[in-house]
Amino acid sequence: MKWEDCLKFPGTRDFGREQMAIRERAFSIITSVFKMHGGVALDTPVFELRETLMGKYGEDSKLVYDLADQGGELCSLRYDLTVPFARYVAMNNISAIKRYQIAKVYRRDNPSKGRYREFYQCDFDIAGVYEPMEPDFEVVKVLTELLDKLDIGVYEIKLNHRKLLDGMLEICGVPAEKFRTVCSSIDKLDKLTFEEVKKELVEEKGVSNETAENIGSLVKTKGPPLEVLLELRKEGSKFMENEGSVVALNELEILFKALEKANALDRISFDLSLARGLDYYTGVIYEAVFKGVTQVGSIAAGGRYDKLVGMFSNKQVPAVGVSLGIERVFAIMEQQEKEKNQVIRATETEVLVSILGKDLILAAELVNELWSAGIKAEFKLTTRVQNHIKYATQTCIPWMVLVGESELRDGKVKLKDIRANQEEEVPRKDFVEVLKQRLSNP
Amino acid sequence: MKWEDCLKFPGTRDFGREQMAIRERAFSIITSVFKMHGGVALDTPVFELRETLMGKYGEDSKLVYDLADQGGELCSLRYDLTVPFARYVAMNNISAIKRYQIAKVYRRDNPSKGRYREFYQCDFDIAGVYEPMEPDFEVVKVLTELLDKLDIGVYEIKLNHRKLLDGMLEICGVPAEKFRTVCSSIDKLDKLTFEEVKKELVEEKGVSNETAENIGSLVKTKGPPLEVLLELRKEGSKFMENEGSVVALNELEILFKALEKANALDRISFDLSLARGLDYYTGVIYEAVFKGVTQVGSIAAGGRYDKLVGMFSNKQVPAVGVSLGIERVFAIMEQQEKEKNQVIRATETEVLVSILGKDLILAAELVNELWSAGIKAEFKLTTRVQNHIKYATQTCIPWMVLVGESELRDGKVKLKDIRANQEEEVPRKDFVEVLKQRLSNP
Repeated sequence: MKWEDCLKFPGTRDFGREQMAIRERAFSIITSVFKMHGGVALDTPVFELRETLMGKYGEDSKLVYDLADQGGELCSLRYDLTVPFARYVAMNNISAIKRYQIAKVYRRDNPSKGRYREFYQCDFDIAGVYEPMEPDFEVVKVLTELLDKLDIGVYEIKLNHRKLLDGMLEICGVPAEKFRTVCSSIDKLDKLTFEEVKKELVEEKGVSNETAENIGSLVKTKGPPLEVLLELRKEGSKFMENEGSVVALNELEILFKALEKANALDRISFDLSLARGLDYYTGVIYEAVFKGVTQVGSIAAGGRYDKLVGMFSNKQVPAVGVSLGIERVFAIMEQQEKEKNQVIRATETEVLVSILGKDLILAAELVNELWSAGIKAEFKLTTRVQNHIKYATQTCIPWMVLVGESELRDGKVKLKDIRANQEEEVPRKDFVEVLKQRLSNP
Repeated sequence: MKWEDCLKFPGTRDFGREQMAIRERAFSIITSVFKMHGGVALDTPVFELRETLMGKYGEDSKLVYDLADQGGELCSLRYDLTVPFARYVAMNNISAIKRYQIAKVYRRDNPSKGRYREFYQCDFDIAGVYEPMEPDFEVVKVLTELLDKLDIGVYEIKLNHRKLLDGMLEICGVPAEKFRTVCSSIDKLDKLTFEEVKKELVEEKGVSNETAENIGSLVKTKGPPLEVLLELRKEGSKFMENEGSVVALNELEILFKALEKANALDRISFDLSLARGLDYYTGVIYEAVFKGVTQVGSIAAGGRYDKLVGMFSNKQVPAVGVSLGIERVFAIMEQQEKEKNQVIRATETEVLVSILGKDLILAAELVNELWSAGIKAEFKLTTRVQNHIKYATQTCIPWMVLVGESELRDGKVKLKDIRANQEEEVPRKDFVEVLKQRLSNP
């Protein structure tokens, strides 16, 4: 570790200059998608009461950051944006809301494994009572629009339904009290082989060999949604004898047909191996993964959680949402920019006023005329104009105003077009107007 | 306290719907001013190593939030944006940067006194070696532009210089080791009478009665900058025999003349009673206060701090900056909006697609055509269209698409202009084009 790194908390990052420019571009794309769908913005505090977060994240609760007890209420840093959203809906007695939030979340994860302790999530959620699949359709559609518009590569959205998953486990002979723990084993199928998962199921979770084999054969079911739907509903399918599964398959049919009409179905893979770790999901669940050369894994995930708001009040408000993990998006966008070999501008400066000498008062007068005219401008005093030209070139400032002794004497200023490397002299009183014209016709 | 309030950590707030719209407008104005001056954006982590924050805030250090010791490095939530900026400059070995940052800071303050524990600051700082007053001028100019463009009322910027303040104390007979502690008493003059401050100086700080009286007569000096400057420099002025004061007055002359050329001097009051609490200031200091009917007190403050970056590395990088406390700005803007009696839109939705019945698949097809055409649209299924018209009216959605059985049979859709309360039928295949035209000619 370098000494400089000792100045910062491990697992956190500063975003400076060019990185911020990329990040702002990503946020602008994401916000425009959320607004396209009538989402309202919400901002919640970075800390919540500790009890608000307790009992929501299963095994991951150990990753919650607590604040020190310095007197007063105990609180913790938010782990995600979903639980604070549910708390907000309950607290304000809201019966329907479509909200988005782009904010940082905090996890006591291991930075040595390349994991961040502070990172952005971009969430879109719809709470309220609607017709079946009405908000679920929109949330999945929003996810496809986000990934399409960010334009960061080929992706696939794995989709399943908690009721179908439970039905599958029932069919395989798993007792109801083991559904959730068996789910968390199945959830590991994207990282482990089935043999490894089977070992965990049999040896740790107490599932019989036969049941594990049954699970193994069913979780292989995946593919184009309408085809898989047909397969699961064909004559003799055990799913058609299972009540929860029938409900799930009927809901999925509506969802798939709506997504088909909205040109989004070709990104979806109906995948019976998708389980999702969190306990609070009650309906459709999904997860987006990249299909590119570099397998960065899951980039977004979400689902329906109908019981979470009710944990904070005596009123149930069903909800469905998606959370986009934007850090991998930044990494990919930065890589793309590098490959394009374009300079990413950290500022939007249009004009650099370069004064030969130390006359701040002259500089103030000239640059203020530009600011007053709405032209983005920087100024510098110097005895070496070459340094200023170098600075303008490096930071892609298109125009310079050069003022030295001879210009002052003649009542003129020199304008320099950096890209064309051309100079012209204009009367002192006209330079703002001339620059306005030059900037509007680049 | 209501039960709902028990769900949230005291001293924190959610910003929902209309509040977010106002906040976004304020941030957009502030960001545009920062960009007008070539500022680059920076984002630092919400937590810093505890030792980074230690010894920077004097008596206020007790307000720093610590994270619980859950293993690993000890860290704390940022108290301001200035110290993280100095840490960033040192860590990245930066010799010159003009940066802005809009972010939340955290203080263990007392919410019962109406103080927030989480609030936004908007900071603009320039670090690096420049000609005298070159960056100081720009920072003060930026402050006037921020307050002018936010358009929230009459304000005044009190301005002083640490070297002049120290010179004044020297002239009054205060020993050098008591400069800082006497300064923190003087800093209270905006809240206490001089008699109260004098009592503190004599009884607690061990200053003689005569010295306290001398201070009392000098701190009354305030007014238009160039006039006060003339006064302090007139023949026989003790400030002209004090080395530090002469340096300060020469710097202030340059600053005032530059601000005059930039049409910003009329907002400034040169005020010898301004002391500022923080220890790290080394040059010009300033504080903006509202002059309106409701005296909300200080709204922005800053100054020059030449030694802070050097506390994190072996390289001194002088710096000057300003921090705008935006919470009071929000409060004033909200009040202004209420007085205007205008509805603040929380969404930008242009069209509401209202489907009579439960046909999600039809809704998906229609609304997707709008989304694909870049029209911001929501959709709703219902058996009661009146509810949708009410929703569109309340949320200021200008257009509705109404589809019922008769429209479907005839291959048409109904468009409703909400403000004009007029309806027209158009062929199903043309409705997106027609809406595009209507929206571009409102």
